[in-house]
Amino acid sequence: MNVKGFDFEEERIKLEIGKLGAKRVLLQLPEGLKPEGPRLAKIVEKAGAIPIISADPCYGACDLANAEAQSLGVDLIVHFGHAKLVKHEPVPTVYVEARATVTVEEAVEASIPLLSKWNNIGLATTVQHLQTLETAKEILVRAGKTVVIGDAGRLPYAGNVSGCDYSNVKSIADDVEAFLFVGGGRFHALGIALSTSKPTIIADPYDKKAYSVDDEAQKIIRQRWSCVEEAVRAKTIGILVGLKPGQKNLDQALKIREIAEKNGKVAFLLAVKEVLPETLLEFPTLEAYVNTACPRISLDAPKKFSKPVLTMEEFMVASGESSWQSLLKKGLFERLN
Amino acid sequence: MNVKGFDFEEERIKLEIGKLGAKRVLLQLPEGLKPEGPRLAKIVEKAGAIPIISADPCYGACDLANAEAQSLGVDLIVHFGHAKLVKHEPVPTVYVEARATVTVEEAVEASIPLLSKWNNIGLATTVQHLQTLETAKEILVRAGKTVVIGDAGRLPYAGNVSGCDYSNVKSIADDVEAFLFVGGGRFHALGIALSTSKPTIIADPYDKKAYSVDDEAQKIIRQRWSCVEEAVRAKTIGILVGLKPGQKNLDQALKIREIAEKNGKVAFLLAVKEVLPETLLEFPTLEAYVNTACPRISLDAPKKFSKPVLTMEEFMVASGESSWQSLLKKGLFERLN
Repeated sequence: MNVKGFDFEEERIKLEIGKLGAKRVLLQLPEGLKPEGPRLAKIVEKAGAIPIISADPCYGACDLANAEAQSLGVDLIVHFGHAKLVKHEPVPTVYVEARATVTVEEAVEASIPLLSKWNNIGLATTVQHLQTLETAKEILVRAGKTVVIGDAGRLPYAGNVSGCDYSNVKSIADDVEAFLFVGGGRFHALGIALSTSKPTIIADPYDKKAYSVDDEAQKIIRQRWSCVEEAVRAKTIGILVGLKPGQKNLDQALKIREIAEKNGKVAFLLAVKEVLPETLLEFPTLEAYVNTACPRISLDAPKKFSKPVLTMEEFMVASGESSWQSLLKKGLFERLN
Repeated sequence: MNVKGFDFEEERIKLEIGKLGAKRVLLQLPEGLKPEGPRLAKIVEKAGAIPIISADPCYGACDLANAEAQSLGVDLIVHFGHAKLVKHEPVPTVYVEARATVTVEEAVEASIPLLSKWNNIGLATTVQHLQTLETAKEILVRAGKTVVIGDAGRLPYAGNVSGCDYSNVKSIADDVEAFLFVGGGRFHALGIALSTSKPTIIADPYDKKAYSVDDEAQKIIRQRWSCVEEAVRAKTIGILVGLKPGQKNLDQALKIREIAEKNGKVAFLLAVKEVLPETLLEFPTLEAYVNTACPRISLDAPKKFSKPVLTMEEFMVASGESSWQSLLKKGLFERLN
């Protein structure tokens, strides 16, 4: 347990190193937790292995540093901050979920007035705060609410949402009037709102405050629609193929290419690890992009790219293969099948 | 041949695809040539293969997209703009050097007055302008100069310099009074000046002008020395281990770690593909870095990083294992052995 309020499970890390007899260990942490890297490296060293910290950006378990570990002759990856996602693990991998130690009572109490219009509430959180779900539920029940926690079976925990997987909230969206998300920041709550089209309130245990993300979700939906409209007019498009292990969808990219050509567009496949605005600026002849990697690249900050960067499902709308209304109903995170 | 003045060898690309029966081809271009990607992809398509353009940054043949190609099931890489560097090629690779079609006479003529103080001139260029070396030599000889073109045997061509390999100019540095570099931009000419400590003039065929880079080289040397001085005081350092195929030096990183610890520093290994300023900001407890990847990351823009990022040889100076004067004599690009 450390000053920052997360459980880094130092004892388990040492045990796993001993159990495997690992000689070289790669530590992979998401951006917010990276400053802990050197301290955790010292723990690996004390357990008798050489620690290497992965310094490249990491935004999810989709980004598991398999190739890096193989290239460095690493015999154990310790991945922090996310639950397991990628099934194929060529290098043994331990997930340290980095559960938060912050209490949530105050924030959940603050959410009650904001939930006054609704009776049936869906409850969700990130892996960091899963241990607080029962407490949060009790507070809501005491306030007279009916609480539903979804479990679609795709994520390891009921009530859990990740950056791109909202299957648990979608599975109960028809049964609830609104969602309460327990956790810091707007990122995951926006994901819930965009996936379910339901009113979504954040109970932020760090600020000890509650607030709605609905206005922001509506703004994103309007921005997405204008991106779709712009992409309809694009004659030449780039299809982004993600290179991170859990973001690679080459078959779907090839399918998008076919649909684009059927629609009279010229389409190019672009393989890319990090989709940065400057990366896309290198291709001035391309007028729009379809992103088959992480949907958040498209959804979170449309204004940072100078050209529209559609999700696969948004491209189906732009191509007339499906309608905007039906996509909103399925949720903006829906993946092409 | 295209509008931009480079030879992309379209016919050879088609022939190689046919010869290999390649079904999926990855096109890798450095930043300046990336806009040509879609046009070249169409040529690959006409030759019967599916083209994929690598969109991640590429600054040299050290950065060959092997892992990306393997992950995408590609059976041929076409790498543009650089000569072959990485020996191990798990995926068949064709190098298209992208020779420039611009003429150099005017720029070389313009350099003559700037070379008036010297008689023995070393001549060098990038792979793009190699075909102009004889013409440049003739102009210098007509002006009464003795011209030397170095060949240390490490690069595929005599007189060639790459972003990190100045062995050809170093091999003749004792025989010449100054260097003339034929090519655009300061990047390679600065490399010559920093490797040889000789006056270096650029003959820029695009601007059709000549100018000296010596003031800038001196400024970089002063900046490097202040980075070394700052690193001497650092107690906790990060050692950057490059993940690009031609930039990986894990053994040397481990050696640096040993020397650092012998010197009473605490050292951490950081694996990284792209060394960006924001990457290093994630580790606030580290006070300086030693970069075992591309030396240009350290040498080119020290001010873009908030902490010193030393080359391996600079770290040997900071550790008292060698002197600044002897490093300047060997050249700042010298690699630790």
